[in-house]
Amino acid sequence: MINIPRGTQDILPAETPKWQYIERRLVEIAKSYNYKEIRTPIFESTDLFARGVGDSTDIVQKEMYTFTDKGDRSMTLRPEGTAAVVRSYIENKMHGQANQPVKLFYNGPMFRYERKQKGRYRQFVQFGVEVIGAENPAVDAEVLHMLYHIYSSFGLKSLKLVINSIGDMESRQEYKAALVEHFTPHIGAFCQDCQNRLHTNPMRILDCKVDREQPAVKSAPKITDYLNDYSKQYYEAVKGHLDRLGIPYVEDANLVRGLDYYTHTAFEMMSEAEGFGAITTLSGGGRYNGLLEMLDGPSETGIGFALSIERLLLALEAEGIELDVDEQLDLFIVTMPETVNEAVKLLAELRTGGIRADMDYLDRKMKAQMKQADRLNVKYTFVLGGDELASGTVKLKDMSSGEVADVKIEELTSYLKERK
Amino acid sequence: MINIPRGTQDILPAETPKWQYIERRLVEIAKSYNYKEIRTPIFESTDLFARGVGDSTDIVQKEMYTFTDKGDRSMTLRPEGTAAVVRSYIENKMHGQANQPVKLFYNGPMFRYERKQKGRYRQFVQFGVEVIGAENPAVDAEVLHMLYHIYSSFGLKSLKLVINSIGDMESRQEYKAALVEHFTPHIGAFCQDCQNRLHTNPMRILDCKVDREQPAVKSAPKITDYLNDYSKQYYEAVKGHLDRLGIPYVEDANLVRGLDYYTHTAFEMMSEAEGFGAITTLSGGGRYNGLLEMLDGPSETGIGFALSIERLLLALEAEGIELDVDEQLDLFIVTMPETVNEAVKLLAELRTGGIRADMDYLDRKMKAQMKQADRLNVKYTFVLGGDELASGTVKLKDMSSGEVADVKIEELTSYLKERK
Repeated sequence: MINIPRGTQDILPAETPKWQYIERRLVEIAKSYNYKEIRTPIFESTDLFARGVGDSTDIVQKEMYTFTDKGDRSMTLRPEGTAAVVRSYIENKMHGQANQPVKLFYNGPMFRYERKQKGRYRQFVQFGVEVIGAENPAVDAEVLHMLYHIYSSFGLKSLKLVINSIGDMESRQEYKAALVEHFTPHIGAFCQDCQNRLHTNPMRILDCKVDREQPAVKSAPKITDYLNDYSKQYYEAVKGHLDRLGIPYVEDANLVRGLDYYTHTAFEMMSEAEGFGAITTLSGGGRYNGLLEMLDGPSETGIGFALSIERLLLALEAEGIELDVDEQLDLFIVTMPETVNEAVKLLAELRTGGIRADMDYLDRKMKAQMKQADRLNVKYTFVLGGDELASGTVKLKDMSSGEVADVKIEELTSYLKERK
Repeated sequence: MINIPRGTQDILPAETPKWQYIERRLVEIAKSYNYKEIRTPIFESTDLFARGVGDSTDIVQKEMYTFTDKGDRSMTLRPEGTAAVVRSYIENKMHGQANQPVKLFYNGPMFRYERKQKGRYRQFVQFGVEVIGAENPAVDAEVLHMLYHIYSSFGLKSLKLVINSIGDMESRQEYKAALVEHFTPHIGAFCQDCQNRLHTNPMRILDCKVDREQPAVKSAPKITDYLNDYSKQYYEAVKGHLDRLGIPYVEDANLVRGLDYYTHTAFEMMSEAEGFGAITTLSGGGRYNGLLEMLDGPSETGIGFALSIERLLLALEAEGIELDVDEQLDLFIVTMPETVNEAVKLLAELRTGGIRADMDYLDRKMKAQMKQADRLNVKYTFVLGGDELASGTVKLKDMSSGEVADVKIEELTSYLKERK
């Protein structure tokens, strides 16, 4: 038997209605904030991610699904959404369009070859947004408000929004120099990855999962002490907006994004629900400066977030929240052998009229069909026999109340529509 | 600059609302027919497609995106939807579940390395359905009715549904023998592919694009003359349902699906719209027998179709049909430097209340903000100045009528909701 690829999942009919519900909600929310959808391909040139995600990251070094296509080009299944959106922004010259900033959202599968664990799959779905073309604290606040509103709108309560500023390029340069000075005497005790990072990317030492308990990590200088005036003002303005919007947050000076193009606001949303499991991050994002230039685009700045739909589902489960999905079938027609042809026709009319309806296709006896209707948790049923066809009227049974009403066959669609 | 992979496309914000509209409609229709969504991974074991699509097909021989993963397993980006749905049906033992037949739909990207041409991309989107577990002409009619209803519901008129029966296994065996006998004297004039197919899969000679004008193709025996009694009755019953449902169709005895597991009903929906281009097939499908067993599953039969969303869009364009997409922004708030903070707060409240609203983030002057509101084709605007904040009332301008109404700031959400 051929099995599903390791680390991936089928989303089965019992679960897909939740996904549909969540994705519709996300699209509606994004539209309230005037974001437009963009859909980029599932794979891109490997070079895009090497440059746009960063050669030194675990993603690029260890986790990419890379292959050579029949034209001998190296392609990679996208491990995240931002690089491709920025590629499309540049390629389609969106910096020249009239409406600025450009506000985009995306939703789709991403791919990382990771060790399997709860809530982490090799194919996972991310919904994300990017705002490109405005360095303005009010934009950072908009993005954070949308993120907060998304989770709140589903009824989630145990949320923790963590924010930080990593300042502008000037601030970062000073901070990096301070980190190198701080870590150099202790670096021998660190993992090989961190030893390599010391001079290329010392901020990533703060992110390292292996060395997180090292005393030198805990005593490391904080970026917040190295912010220049502009960066400080920017951060204060963002926090001012968050306070005004009533969004609770905590600050964490260790929340740094190790890549060179991140600037100013960085954030993560965590779940504090009990039983959520080891990975508590629901989503993350930040402002990026220099990413567009690194991809040969104009010198515009951007900010965005990406949220995992799998983890949103886990958070809903952990807080015991049921989504109000609408999957109920309106009608099941119980047929007799001599009325099947008429039932096929009636069913087609009802469905064309927007009624969710079905019938038996396995030549079941009437009693078995009744059972089937019960199992399907249908709102209404009726028996279509010779008498009903002759009189043009059926006895429509409301399956929850048990009440029976005489309804003309030709009025079934409108009768059921009114009761939807 | 890094470009999009050759043969793929970005679906940009001007187009995505059409996709959202179409996909929502397709989901609603599928639910009316009591189909449930299934989502399978983007890639599967290469073996699944080699067996489930067929080793001898162009898809498997020439068009697959195949790669070796980090666990040294051969994986392939799915070139079509049926094989993976059947894999999931088997793996998740859906033949044992209470509700039968199992009726599934899917929607997502597929991948084939093909020569680039209009309306054909290397990544394309297919919406499809599969019904597994009932060999019943009424099921075939249901699937065909859904297909016809989908296109009709968008207002398409220039449609041609082509159907055929390729009978059951017994009928096919007799027919294949007749084809071998017929083609053997002429095979030297045929392409190498056809010469190879003569004994392995002679029905595919009828599909061959190279040899379609050969006299021997035109004079070949027809499958319809080789149907046994059961197959004839089955086909007549399907046509009887189509007639009763008022679905127009034409029969084409040359419409054969070359793979060994296809049986009985085969069909294609074509566009006859002028200017549609060379590829007129919008969708296709048929009944399959033996596919489940070939994939080590139970001996259930299925039927399904797959439709291309790209070609549906082309058909809509060719018939001049505009979709009623709802992308209009409700409100644009014109701000002054001293009211930006209040605007950020008000905007958040409006958006949380479901109003689609935006403001300026580029410190534009009032006049430029007004222009921006015009460009955004927004329904309402107002200026938020010091006076408005003091009085708690704004002058809300209806941008299509030019009328201005005094509205209390605290009542803006409900006022705009009523006018959505």
